[in-house]
Amino acid sequence: MLGVCYYPEHWPESWWARDAAEMAALGIRYVRIGEFAWSRIEPESGHFEWEWLDRAIETLGAAGLKVVLGTPTATPPKWLIDLYPEILPHAENGAARGFGSRRHYTFSSAVWYRESARIVTAMAERYGESPHVAGWQTDNEYGCHDTVLSWGPEDLTAFKGWLRRRYQTPEALNEAWGNVFWSMELASFDEVELPVRTVTETAPAARLDYWRFASEQVVRYNEMQVGILRRLSPGRFITHNYMGFFHDFDHHAVSETLDFASWDSYPLGFLEKFPFSEQERTRFTRTSHPDVPTFHHDLYRGMAGNRFWVMEQQPGPVNWAPWNAVPAPGMVRLWAWEAFAHGAEVVSYFRWRQAPFGQEQMHAGLNRPDRVRSPGGEEAAQVGAELKAFGALPENRPSPVALVFDYEASWITRIQPQGKDYRHEEICFRWYEAVRRLGLDVDIVRPGADLSGYSLVLLPSLPHVGEAMLETLKTTEAVILIGPRAGSKTRNYAFPDNLAPGPLAELIPIKVIEVASMRPALHAVGGEVSGHAARWREWLETDLPALASFEDGGAAVVATDRVIYCATWAEGDLLSEILTTIALPKAGLVPVDIPDTIRIRRRGDLTFAFNYGTEAWTIPDAAAKRFLLGGATIAPQDLACWEG
Amino acid sequence: MLGVCYYPEHWPESWWARDAAEMAALGIRYVRIGEFAWSRIEPESGHFEWEWLDRAIETLGAAGLKVVLGTPTATPPKWLIDLYPEILPHAENGAARGFGSRRHYTFSSAVWYRESARIVTAMAERYGESPHVAGWQTDNEYGCHDTVLSWGPEDLTAFKGWLRRRYQTPEALNEAWGNVFWSMELASFDEVELPVRTVTETAPAARLDYWRFASEQVVRYNEMQVGILRRLSPGRFITHNYMGFFHDFDHHAVSETLDFASWDSYPLGFLEKFPFSEQERTRFTRTSHPDVPTFHHDLYRGMAGNRFWVMEQQPGPVNWAPWNAVPAPGMVRLWAWEAFAHGAEVVSYFRWRQAPFGQEQMHAGLNRPDRVRSPGGEEAAQVGAELKAFGALPENRPSPVALVFDYEASWITRIQPQGKDYRHEEICFRWYEAVRRLGLDVDIVRPGADLSGYSLVLLPSLPHVGEAMLETLKTTEAVILIGPRAGSKTRNYAFPDNLAPGPLAELIPIKVIEVASMRPALHAVGGEVSGHAARWREWLETDLPALASFEDGGAAVVATDRVIYCATWAEGDLLSEILTTIALPKAGLVPVDIPDTIRIRRRGDLTFAFNYGTEAWTIPDAAAKRFLLGGATIAPQDLACWEG
Amino acid sequence: MLGVCYYPEHWPESWWARDAAEMAALGIRYVRIGEFAWSRIEPESGHFEWEWLDRAIETLGAAGLKVVLGTPTATPPKWLIDLYPEILPHAENGAARGFGSRRHYTFSSAVWYRESARIVTAMAERYGESPHVAGWQTDNEYGCHDTVLSWGPEDLTAFKGWLRRRYQTPEALNEAWGNVFWSMELASFDEVELPVRTVTETAPAARLDYWRFASEQVVRYNEMQVGILRRLSPGRFITHNYMGFFHDFDHHAVSETLDFASWDSYPLGFLEKFPFSEQERTRFTRTSHPDVPTFHHDLYRGMAGNRFWVMEQQPGPVNWAPWNAVPAPGMVRLWAWEAFAHGAEVVSYFRWRQAPFGQEQMHAGLNRPDRVRSPGGEEAAQVGAELKAFGALPENRPSPVALVFDYEASWITRIQPQGKDYRHEEICFRWYEAVRRLGLDVDIVRPGADLSGYSLVLLPSLPHVGEAMLETLKTTEAVILIGPRAGSKTRNYAFPDNLAPGPLAELIPIKVIEVASMRPALHAVGGEVSGHAARWREWLETDLPALASFEDGGAAVVATDRVIYCATWAEGDLLSEILTTIALPKAGLVPVDIPDTIRIRRRGDLTFAFNYGTEAWTIPDAAAKRFLLGGATIAPQDLACWEG
Repeated sequence: MLGVCYYPEHWPESWWARDAAEMAALGIRYVRIGEFAWSRIEPESGHFEWEWLDRAIETLGAAGLKVVLGTPTATPPKWLIDLYPEILPHAENGAARGFGSRRHYTFSSAVWYRESARIVTAMAERYGESPHVAGWQTDNEYGCHDTVLSWGPEDLTAFKGWLRRRYQTPEALNEAWGNVFWSMELASFDEVELPVRTVTETAPAARLDYWRFASEQVVRYNEMQVGILRRLSPGRFITHNYMGFFHDFDHHAVSETLDFASWDSYPLGFLEKFPFSEQERTRFTRTSHPDVPTFHHDLYRGMAGNRFWVMEQQPGPVNWAPWNAVPAPGMVRLWAWEAFAHGAEVVSYFRWRQAPFGQEQMHAGLNRPDRVRSPGGEEAAQVGAELKAFGALPENRPSPVALVFDYEASWITRIQPQGKDYRHEEICFRWYEAVRRLGLDVDIVRPGADLSGYSLVLLPSLPHVGEAMLETLKTTEAVILIGPRAGSKTRNYAFPDNLAPGPLAELIPIKVIEVASMRPALHAVGGEVSGHAARWREWLETDLPALASFEDGGAAVVATDRVIYCATWAEGDLLSEILTTIALPKAGLVPVDIPDTIRIRRRGDLTFAFNYGTEAWTIPDAAAKRFLLGGATIAPQDLACWEG
Repeated sequence: MLGVCYYPEHWPESWWARDAAEMAALGIRYVRIGEFAWSRIEPESGHFEWEWLDRAIETLGAAGLKVVLGTPTATPPKWLIDLYPEILPHAENGAARGFGSRRHYTFSSAVWYRESARIVTAMAERYGESPHVAGWQTDNEYGCHDTVLSWGPEDLTAFKGWLRRRYQTPEALNEAWGNVFWSMELASFDEVELPVRTVTETAPAARLDYWRFASEQVVRYNEMQVGILRRLSPGRFITHNYMGFFHDFDHHAVSETLDFASWDSYPLGFLEKFPFSEQERTRFTRTSHPDVPTFHHDLYRGMAGNRFWVMEQQPGPVNWAPWNAVPAPGMVRLWAWEAFAHGAEVVSYFRWRQAPFGQEQMHAGLNRPDRVRSPGGEEAAQVGAELKAFGALPENRPSPVALVFDYEASWITRIQPQGKDYRHEEICFRWYEAVRRLGLDVDIVRPGADLSGYSLVLLPSLPHVGEAMLETLKTTEAVILIGPRAGSKTRNYAFPDNLAPGPLAELIPIKVIEVASMRPALHAVGGEVSGHAARWREWLETDLPALASFEDGGAAVVATDRVIYCATWAEGDLLSEILTTIALPKAGLVPVDIPDTIRIRRRGDLTFAFNYGTEAWTIPDAAAKRFLLGGATIAPQDLACWEG
Repeated sequence: MLGVCYYPEHWPESWWARDAAEMAALGIRYVRIGEFAWSRIEPESGHFEWEWLDRAIETLGAAGLKVVLGTPTATPPKWLIDLYPEILPHAENGAARGFGSRRHYTFSSAVWYRESARIVTAMAERYGESPHVAGWQTDNEYGCHDTVLSWGPEDLTAFKGWLRRRYQTPEALNEAWGNVFWSMELASFDEVELPVRTVTETAPAARLDYWRFASEQVVRYNEMQVGILRRLSPGRFITHNYMGFFHDFDHHAVSETLDFASWDSYPLGFLEKFPFSEQERTRFTRTSHPDVPTFHHDLYRGMAGNRFWVMEQQPGPVNWAPWNAVPAPGMVRLWAWEAFAHGAEVVSYFRWRQAPFGQEQMHAGLNRPDRVRSPGGEEAAQVGAELKAFGALPENRPSPVALVFDYEASWITRIQPQGKDYRHEEICFRWYEAVRRLGLDVDIVRPGADLSGYSLVLLPSLPHVGEAMLETLKTTEAVILIGPRAGSKTRNYAFPDNLAPGPLAELIPIKVIEVASMRPALHAVGGEVSGHAARWREWLETDLPALASFEDGGAAVVATDRVIYCATWAEGDLLSEILTTIALPKAGLVPVDIPDTIRIRRRGDLTFAFNYGTEAWTIPDAAAKRFLLGGATIAPQDLACWEG
């Protein structure tokens, strides 16, 4: 189903009814509203103005639309900040980050926690049982604009409390952080400082704890909102809209109390955000890289209940990337169908109409500021019509491949990358890309998730392997492909006693005795599989034979019957050979031969194919297929769907 | 005529008389002094020491030289800053920018305004009617070192007052800034914050207002100085020395109360400041790009009275660019004659003698620190001799081409460039270059300037088209060539109701329905004209046929009989074809065929030609010409002047 | 002899004895301990816990090892910072640099000076006469992490006092700094501000004085520690461990009270720190550039007594460079022998065992965290065995070539580089490299050092030539090769009255009348010598003939019988020709023909050769030589030593 994000407060009330009617006509079912409207709901402290919002909800509901209400906590109004300036977050340099945009709060502020509860309660009391309200979105894009980590006095106070609860004694803290190093030992929790603004780097264990603390605050804050909404708005779903390529808090933990995750899909903007090569960025400037949207679909589908929404879908150029292309014709439709193919329940466009004012005035909508449908709106309308004809989509089924994605791993490798271009998000994405290029479906799961039923499990980057994770690896029957640095850190950011891969040595008999990060260059490796490595190399102590070796004879890939270890950062060619020659045969999986700009995906008993390239692609054995969308030949930026 | 900048306070008094005599002998008529001498004039609060300056002026006057007195407000002395630290400007991060260099004041400080009036009054009372004083320079290089915008408490106070006067009610302010967006609404002017140090970007309308406010403060501050000088120094001219490639305040508005504008011409330094390609920078490293000095001559000639001075002219290497070349032999002479060709009344070198100490000790002068004439000084002496032989230069006449240059346009596109390489100064300069390469003279005019008499009007970048501007465009008979983004914003930084080009739709029937900023790459366009486009592209709704189209068929250039619209950032090849194939024929103008490093310019009934290249150039039809300078063949870094 | 850095406080006490035994077995003689152990020695104010350290020293001593004790002042503990927060240093932006890593003190703090004296006294009282303590290291790596210059209130107070003592009157200060420029004159020392956080650059003379002040504070602080140790620990040596490519204070001045200098040699890390080309960095990624370790050996050998130690030697990958390679097999051994060849008394590895926790957990040691010897440890053991067989090394003898290295020159050219890529450290290193490629040994000496006995003296970069320096140049009989900018500044950062080369005009009759910094490009020069120049060019007034000229005829190299002046930044090809064609013949020196990755060095009557390349090298005339290490052919990453 389709949805849309709408801001009635941005438009004359006289426009609302026509807007609602046009939404319904386009095939839209859900309308998200309210998430930035605090100053209109409560224009001064304690004085609420609900009537306009009552009328807006009523107008939408009258047109047959369902409302998703956003709690307005992403934008505390000026009067609240003036009353309680301690709400403001602080930058790494210690300066307050002021009022004038959005997300100007720290999760550490007790006052803010209380005020958030107050406004959420008020809103839920007013609309919690409205027949037009289908569900809730908590806040908006937690962490956007670098707002998970804040570095001010409120944060220090909260961090001290967190540490006190976690460690009980300063001795335990000193031990955990390795504070004997450089005489950093503390005699009491009062002596703790924020791990920032020091002469050189602070203890990595301290920084990891600060990140955990900050992440847990997001979890706790979201739980508070969810608790209020569950109580006052029974039967409605609750979700939050996550972002792309953003890992500053543990989304799995936040999702535990949600009904499902949502995310905001801006494929073209993300092309500039992720460290793609300039060549890739230029090549895919108007389509995005084929794995950008789907990596996130598969990630967020794994958050809660095997369900997800796209809460905000790019309908045209955005305003926030270094360059903002117009999507190639067809892409706005393609992205929507692709989301459905990956299991989305709803694709909701951001936004109904481009705002002619404000920070995002260059962000397209389904409609132009002059109330005419935009090119993207036309494509959305086509999707609306096609959906109507299509009927219900089948249930999501598990994929044959699971990729374990760990937020803490991102923090660990960002805290001490050891090599300047060693990036957690990059290695995870490239492994995902490698499997998707082989036509296989992937579930992205959290560490400790049940791995039974999978044929192949990928661990591209998992420096800290917890007990639950280890247990699932030991019990799964899947083939396991492990990337570099796995098991190299304990919970307290230290070397395991047995060196890397730490507890994974139970799975594969190796020991990492030396590691190098490598300047940008390709290093040939050869053997049963061959290709190139870069960035990272480990020296192994093992009796296993090398399946691929560096030119000096050092092992690059080793394997047991069921477990494969890659002791380097495998480039695409090597990774592809590891998969096709070693991992897939062991796992009993067969790759599908597709061009590098074609992607296929199964949902239930349907198969979808999408063309991100510049050439048409003809599906093999097309004659035997029953097509529900498209046909044997898929034009660039087009798609097909067939049974089976 | 020639001038020079001199600092008697830097030298033993015993040197002054010989200096003055050598100036006169070199052909110098005007000597600017005093603009950094506050600590010598008033060494402690209220205690003035005029005698040294009396003697300096007397010495210069006795040698037949005319003095231009600079008010010393660019360098408030330490005791004043210690008395009133609130004078200091503040950086964007909120930190005070301290004493120890120059321009350490904010225009927002009421105390500073008062103290400035006090020192200017004292100086004008002392020297206002001196027979040796020909005129005044207010302050020095307003805005240098990023000092127009200041971000401190004094600035916030002044900004609140400015907003109160402008908007009267907070409701009007909220409406103008679009504060409903992201709950940014304010209940009173007291709630206003500086649009800085926020979590993400602030309202573009707020930032534009802050820039207007800051610019108006420069205007008001300069008016204050001018008012005092007019009153106490009757009959003397008043000017200010502007800078190159600097657009942080509205120079047209500041110039309204000046007799003429001056500017400080450092062609080699500017080569590093403007976003030239590395290839251009290397090619022109010792000459500067041929349009750098003249773009500014033509810009500043348009400020007031069709007159201008070069107040500071580079005489050798400077000290402030990343690399500081020695001008190629001949360039110090060439730049001076080129300034005269473009209408300069006086070319004044900075500085008489290189200072052996202080921040600018690596900045050349006409003389070396050891009192010997420098290589640049030798070339200046040649100019002095040539000027003597040359006699009076004819009056400036209007050019056939007007280029509209708008300072606010610079602020608007810097506030939201939307594409990382979309730069107002670059598109304006490249359009100027394109016309100058065709041998045509250009006047650079402000929006709303009278356009009658011009054959061709260029609007390279004008996002906000005000009423006066529109009126002149509607009434001129000139052909009008309009660049992208024209008319795309209202006064309050919003989309016009009819979308871009807003009011210009009265001139040409188009509507911009979608825009893209494009990653660095060249995009071919073809049709009646062809070439390449980059950086920016608009999709037009129009019935006009495309004169050039992108490869997907989208229009790049459309035109009516009299108005041409370029819906993209035209590269040099495309721009040249638009001019030669469409614009000039419509305008009845004929280009002159010159190599790309030759420039020609007419002043009255004289024509000048300048050779920035590495090859000699022979003037066509030279036999028929009467040469006043040079002859038929112009050597590299040389020039010629002929009648007609 | 070999040494090692050890942190007993990082390990269970039960491990110490085995560690000590293994050290001794490996051939280690010296063990440095204690320099980061303050929080264990004095866990709260005034409460000392010596017993653990007593036992550690006893354990080491019992194994026959000698202890080098580090004073623990690089890491003041938290309780001390909480008592006296004014100890903290301040960044250029004015913010305090907080507790949580190391070197969090400013040399300006009187409290810190007192507290440092207190802990050093306590430690020296305890261990000063211990039979196991062979010597002391003061503090650790002065200046590391940019800690020489601090920018806070304590620093301003100290700086004012320093200026008062130096200049006596504000008039003298104003004169020295050229404060008449830009009205910067001060009426009293109270008006002085730190030369930072201003609108644009501050007076270069002020910045140079601030650097001198800061450097002198390091000298004074070290003298304080040395004074205490001399008194309480008679007969023990005192040293300090300097760093690589670090010039923020005057190491010569600090060394005056030391017995010898030490330094910390991390050849692979330094490859990323020095401005090598990317090509060089990639080529030498696992060996380092062949002149990186030896430049420092030769520099630090020149500090005190013609002796030096390597206090920390890289034994494997480090943790702090952008990329951290594993040394090529053989390099850990090669670097040690190379240090001995250049005169090192001791090569001490950092560290005994890799720490599994803390900031440096990715820094290799001689042992792995799991108590197994690392690959680097194996090579160290080989060195230990070879040393045992080798017997005593001969005395260091003077080299034929002296290179004058001046720390103040680094400050001067960093304060006003005038060209963005003009770097003091780079020109000095490249001149050293050029001579070393010719097989000649080099002593690096301070300005004013006795130059008698040298055949060739190099002055690559010496903008300020003091009287002592001038005197040694006038009295030496060596050939002198002078680089650009020599003698261009007075002590007060001004032009000398006679222009550059100032006092050096007594040696060679030239005057620099104009200078250019040049954009990146190679400029051909030709004549008796030829090659390329870049970055910097001077125009000379002289009657000397040009030995090489630029294409426009300007002189690039001139010479008298004994003095050669290079008026540009000579690239390697030109520099090599100047040396082989002009300088060496004049000096009577004969270059040795070696490949560019081979280096040779004589110690006493022995010659060593080292192979940094990828090809084996066969020594000419090898049959005639008696080899003590290796043989006629040196494999890559191997070495040889022969008599004669």
